[in-house]
Amino acid sequence: MYEAMRSAVERGGANLVDPANAEGLVWADPARPDLFPSVIDGADDLSWVQLPYAGIEPFAQHLDDHLTWTCGKGVYAPAVAETVMALLLAVCKNLHGYSRTDTWSEPAGRQLAHSRVTVLGGGGIATSLLPLLAPFGCKTTVVRRTDVPLPGADRTVTVDLLDGLLPQTDLLVLALALTPQTSGIIDSRRMKLLPDDAWIVNVARGGHVVTNDLISALTEQVIGGAALDVTDPEPLPDGHPLWTLPNCLITPHIGNTPEMGLALLTPFVEENVRRFVEHRDLLAPVDVALGY
Amino acid sequence: MYEAMRSAVERGGANLVDPANAEGLVWADPARPDLFPSVIDGADDLSWVQLPYAGIEPFAQHLDDHLTWTCGKGVYAPAVAETVMALLLAVCKNLHGYSRTDTWSEPAGRQLAHSRVTVLGGGGIATSLLPLLAPFGCKTTVVRRTDVPLPGADRTVTVDLLDGLLPQTDLLVLALALTPQTSGIIDSRRMKLLPDDAWIVNVARGGHVVTNDLISALTEQVIGGAALDVTDPEPLPDGHPLWTLPNCLITPHIGNTPEMGLALLTPFVEENVRRFVEHRDLLAPVDVALGY
Repeated sequence: MYEAMRSAVERGGANLVDPANAEGLVWADPARPDLFPSVIDGADDLSWVQLPYAGIEPFAQHLDDHLTWTCGKGVYAPAVAETVMALLLAVCKNLHGYSRTDTWSEPAGRQLAHSRVTVLGGGGIATSLLPLLAPFGCKTTVVRRTDVPLPGADRTVTVDLLDGLLPQTDLLVLALALTPQTSGIIDSRRMKLLPDDAWIVNVARGGHVVTNDLISALTEQVIGGAALDVTDPEPLPDGHPLWTLPNCLITPHIGNTPEMGLALLTPFVEENVRRFVEHRDLLAPVDVALGY
Repeated sequence: MYEAMRSAVERGGANLVDPANAEGLVWADPARPDLFPSVIDGADDLSWVQLPYAGIEPFAQHLDDHLTWTCGKGVYAPAVAETVMALLLAVCKNLHGYSRTDTWSEPAGRQLAHSRVTVLGGGGIATSLLPLLAPFGCKTTVVRRTDVPLPGADRTVTVDLLDGLLPQTDLLVLALALTPQTSGIIDSRRMKLLPDDAWIVNVARGGHVVTNDLISALTEQVIGGAALDVTDPEPLPDGHPLWTLPNCLITPHIGNTPEMGLALLTPFVEENVRRFVEHRDLLAPVDVALGY
């Protein structure tokens, strides 16, 4: 990743310098946010920080208004939207069940076409997902902070209307940012509002779903099931009850794999470096107050 | 099914009569083609037979030029095309592998977007599949009997060009009719022409693939894997080697489930009955010489 970011910086028209002399900082080690304070110590000319992921939680404590922050939001969205489609279709066709059997069983499965799909979050993933869903003729509702319509959605509503929507939802896609307001947004009470054959697909962050509530809902078949690309805790430890539930499909945060992700991030960082050099608006700015 | 077909006949404007007095015959018991000769014995006014499935192999020996034959080809295509999308995305995202594990494993997976998808067969399934694939920007090639372009395909070529195409194929979808010419069309030689990470998705008939050749190719990783909604033999017996191969995903002919299928077939038969009553061209005619 370091080499990819290094070449992106150079192709973007900037010079690589020590942090102390830097005007911009591209953070290339997602695993070590703890190093951030020491790296920027003494970097008096620093005005811009590019963070490597869509979610900025690991850096949340460092965010301030003195610097301009950008992240990878939207960059990975096409890859994540594909994973959403894969999970939606898999659960409609019982692929998790068939993968686990070694005998010819009864045909099961329903059509994704014309299903009622509710997407929590009106960002990059929803924007990339809606065109993929379009040919299936689903009834799509996007739930977001504002009611500014998202192109391609049949309806866009604000989050205060969520409870009324859940009973009319066949497939609930979680594709929102994790903030104090959205942490645990899907709890036992809201799962009970869903139809008993509804599935939850979570490609956002594990913390959006109250894990113990989910285990109960899946065990008691309050909902049809859950396909989780993110979990809380993550990684999900061996022996966790979610691993063995027949109506739960878990993928290990493959929304974007390292291989896919770097291929998407590198040209994006190059473009942002170019914009920084040319004093133009940067892509994917973090709203420090909103936290994403 | 009998009740559904009975109501379709009546809503189409025809009267239900004994076979001996019938002008048209809607075959409502797919499991008993053997009864066909005795049912039509003495049906001197019979001119049209509606068969219940897309594939007409069980009735192949009864086909003749004295009667007009129609089948269900194209009727189930939207449902089957959805299953193709589910399988394509599942294999790209390793969902068969993740379904079978109970530990957090390495992120794997590739993008369906921009993949090279070759579809064998230019009928209803391909016609329904191409719009679903369109937003993924895949490079699509349809291989069919004639080179009449299929709308939505990047290329349409005749089957004699198949061998040259296979090395440039990431995902090979089998969606053609089973005839003496297409039986065993995917054998060991052709599998070796595919890239070693290519996957085969078969939603047509098990007989298109030489099963023993497939087992070898999967075991020796000559190809990436296979997702099979149809098998030869079918149903696939317990203990068959395909059940335990990690790079094989088997679904029990869910292209259309009975529930989905009847919902699609019933209005179709009603329409064909109406056309028959009104002496109009019938939908889905079987070409007796071609066998589909």
